[in-house]
Amino acid sequence: MTHCYMTFTILKRRLAHYLRTPIHNLVSPQTDVSLLCWVRSVRKHKDIIFVDLSDGLSSHRLQAVIHASLWDPKKAPISAGCSVRISGDLVQSPGQNQQLELVTKELDLVGECDAAKYPFRPRKTYNIDLERNFQHLRPRMEKYAAVHRVRNRLTQAAHAYFQELDFCQIQTPILTTNDCEGAGETFLVNHIDDLKPTSPSPPTPPSSLEKVAPKSPAPPPTYFPSQCHLTVSSQLHLEALVHSISRVYTIQSAFRAENALSRKHLCEFTMLEVELVTESVDTIVSITEELIKRMWLSVREMEDFKTLGEDWRDAVDTALAKTFVRISYDDAVKELQGKQLTHPLTWGCDFKVEHENLLLEFSQGRPLVITHFPAKIKPFYMATKDGEHGRLAECFDLLLPVGGEVVGGSMREMDRDKLLESIQQASIKGLEWYVELREFGSVPHGGFGLGVDRLLQYFTNTHNIKETVPFPRWQKHCQA
Amino acid sequence: MTHCYMTFTILKRRLAHYLRTPIHNLVSPQTDVSLLCWVRSVRKHKDIIFVDLSDGLSSHRLQAVIHASLWDPKKAPISAGCSVRISGDLVQSPGQNQQLELVTKELDLVGECDAAKYPFRPRKTYNIDLERNFQHLRPRMEKYAAVHRVRNRLTQAAHAYFQELDFCQIQTPILTTNDCEGAGETFLVNHIDDLKPTSPSPPTPPSSLEKVAPKSPAPPPTYFPSQCHLTVSSQLHLEALVHSISRVYTIQSAFRAENALSRKHLCEFTMLEVELVTESVDTIVSITEELIKRMWLSVREMEDFKTLGEDWRDAVDTALAKTFVRISYDDAVKELQGKQLTHPLTWGCDFKVEHENLLLEFSQGRPLVITHFPAKIKPFYMATKDGEHGRLAECFDLLLPVGGEVVGGSMREMDRDKLLESIQQASIKGLEWYVELREFGSVPHGGFGLGVDRLLQYFTNTHNIKETVPFPRWQKHCQA
Repeated sequence: MTHCYMTFTILKRRLAHYLRTPIHNLVSPQTDVSLLCWVRSVRKHKDIIFVDLSDGLSSHRLQAVIHASLWDPKKAPISAGCSVRISGDLVQSPGQNQQLELVTKELDLVGECDAAKYPFRPRKTYNIDLERNFQHLRPRMEKYAAVHRVRNRLTQAAHAYFQELDFCQIQTPILTTNDCEGAGETFLVNHIDDLKPTSPSPPTPPSSLEKVAPKSPAPPPTYFPSQCHLTVSSQLHLEALVHSISRVYTIQSAFRAENALSRKHLCEFTMLEVELVTESVDTIVSITEELIKRMWLSVREMEDFKTLGEDWRDAVDTALAKTFVRISYDDAVKELQGKQLTHPLTWGCDFKVEHENLLLEFSQGRPLVITHFPAKIKPFYMATKDGEHGRLAECFDLLLPVGGEVVGGSMREMDRDKLLESIQQASIKGLEWYVELREFGSVPHGGFGLGVDRLLQYFTNTHNIKETVPFPRWQKHCQA
Repeated sequence: MTHCYMTFTILKRRLAHYLRTPIHNLVSPQTDVSLLCWVRSVRKHKDIIFVDLSDGLSSHRLQAVIHASLWDPKKAPISAGCSVRISGDLVQSPGQNQQLELVTKELDLVGECDAAKYPFRPRKTYNIDLERNFQHLRPRMEKYAAVHRVRNRLTQAAHAYFQELDFCQIQTPILTTNDCEGAGETFLVNHIDDLKPTSPSPPTPPSSLEKVAPKSPAPPPTYFPSQCHLTVSSQLHLEALVHSISRVYTIQSAFRAENALSRKHLCEFTMLEVELVTESVDTIVSITEELIKRMWLSVREMEDFKTLGEDWRDAVDTALAKTFVRISYDDAVKELQGKQLTHPLTWGCDFKVEHENLLLEFSQGRPLVITHFPAKIKPFYMATKDGEHGRLAECFDLLLPVGGEVVGGSMREMDRDKLLESIQQASIKGLEWYVELREFGSVPHGGFGLGVDRLLQYFTNTHNIKETVPFPRWQKHCQA
């Protein structure tokens, strides 16, 4: 294997040669730096123009100083949004806004940008709906690039965290026959041939009816033997794995065909789902709490917060400085019953947005963990215990400002017979395989699902979840 | 933020308390170790039983020594597959097969495993089709758990590699209106309401025809404004992002509704897709080559290769020791034309499996990069150049033993007008947004897609791709 290591080192050196140095790594004066990047803004003087360059690999920009002789505006109009191949010497800048600047020796306009047609101008703000109409172009605006970079960093922090704790990332399927939550708001999946009519069926005038009538229609062909849909959660599949690999997780898309139009819902969203062998819901809450703090610590130093808002960063720092506030459902109901409510609350009901907002006031903007909800308003798979008013689920929800309900978790029912009874009561079909997991070496286990987009909403103070993903999908909207 | 860091440290300590130490970290004698894990095999003697324990977090097993007085076989039959809560002292083992063993003080059978009903026995091999019928249970067999752990490790290595090179992971959508390859083998997605008949349509006897005839059918309701399907590739979306963030990648599911039943095809598979600003296809090949070597280096030390085969590990070491063999399509054709072929080959045709296998013989089992295919057999988005026989695509395919074609990559056409012409020639609709990417600050860029499951096939010498994922989906098969 010595050869392989050697080659690896050589390749590493060769790659450094092939790939240009990112702008954020250009930290000391040097000659003959070459960049292929975008012009973000242009300031023209008589003999000289100043240009701010970005490669998008960070929020750093590099000022290039270009002598007028290098630049013929008639031949090639250099404007915000265009791309250039540019080289020169990196020197100490006499200006106050930057340490270094690029004294340009060669300049090549690679891709023009017609300012009259380009929908965005630097330093101008636009209506969010207009920006959404240009999903393919809006990452070129600094605030969207910043959000994507923050997402990248926090996802990596999640991986690092779970890998340190010996969790194994599992490739769970997106195509599935089971509906985890039993909520039914799923997308169906068909092979393209399934939806083709077996014979062309034009609008049928009465005179030609006899032509179509007697044929008994063939059953439609199906690619899969039964109806498949897009997963609403990887939990049940992770439960299959956790009976062999005792700590597992996945980060991938989940789908809900929700009709609700809200600033916190997408029909395709990213879920971090975790399942582990454990005997207590407290452990699961603690793992969640440390994870969120770890993710925040990994992103809070990013320069992107200059774009996203440094006041907000201070607010999150304060909110996450202490342990999360924990309260039982029982106590949360008592807390709310003392308040003026538009939607009155009785024990046994789920919280509405109004209630969640009041509870976040109660926690003074700190993350709030609510535990032990009534079992009857929670899904069939949760382990339960007896409470004052009836059966309680061994579960928790985590509420955050901006993002709302970001995490839901629970211990899972490990007893085969109790589980089977819950499934029958909920009239859910097709879960024989899931019940069978409890027949051979069943273990106490639980986990949680974390909405990555909503957490990103909170960290970056993004009002609407549609601005946290490059190509958001929601009802009536699927561009590109 | 000082408080937050403090809390973080405290939590870290608390988590170590909550989570049991993984078996692979139990490396020195100590008292009062507690485990919640599975029994993988049992050897009974007169007064004592030996039990091999696994927590699935690695291939490591721990031998527990249990005195007969702790174990009443009538009350609780301890057998392979059952789960136990077990504690005792970890001491030097007198046996030759392990350094340490657990002298058991307490034993609690948590989940029984009825050997008569459990489909798998330790050390017995089964027909692969039988194993596939128990997708929810087969991860309990060591070879499947090993493959999942190797996948976890190689995915992490890919992330580490790209993060070091300043790439940004992007959340690309799975629901989409565009068909990247133009191949048309896509899955369609519908809201559950879309497929409900607007009125019940029973089999129609001739006498009742007049009841149905005159009504003009309402257009079916659609959740999305136009037909959506599951993505076949994230490339086009990554291209939107690479015009702002100049190095991007994604690792996620892609879907092809292929009718081909083969040992190398799944209809849901994992793709690592990469896009970067670059001016040469050579750079893209080098990045691919270093990536694959890095992934191999990250997994080859894993003890899981004791299960998966150590001879194979040596073979991969040898194959990856030197640089990958590179050959142009032109030269590959010349090479093949000298051979005895069942499927004769003329310039301009794509390679068949027979040809690929002969080319891998030519490279003597080393990874083979074939570059510059005829443009007419490659997709519309590839940049081209003139060659001896006509236009050549600035592209490459990477062939590996076992996995076959694992990577495909290319430079992309950056010129708006040329791109538009290719799209019109291919008669592909709905790509106006994609063409528009070239209108504002277009850049030379390219990338590749790597089939993660196929690479895993190669690394672990898994004959059929269906054994590399926990819940494989292929034609007529979608369990759970």
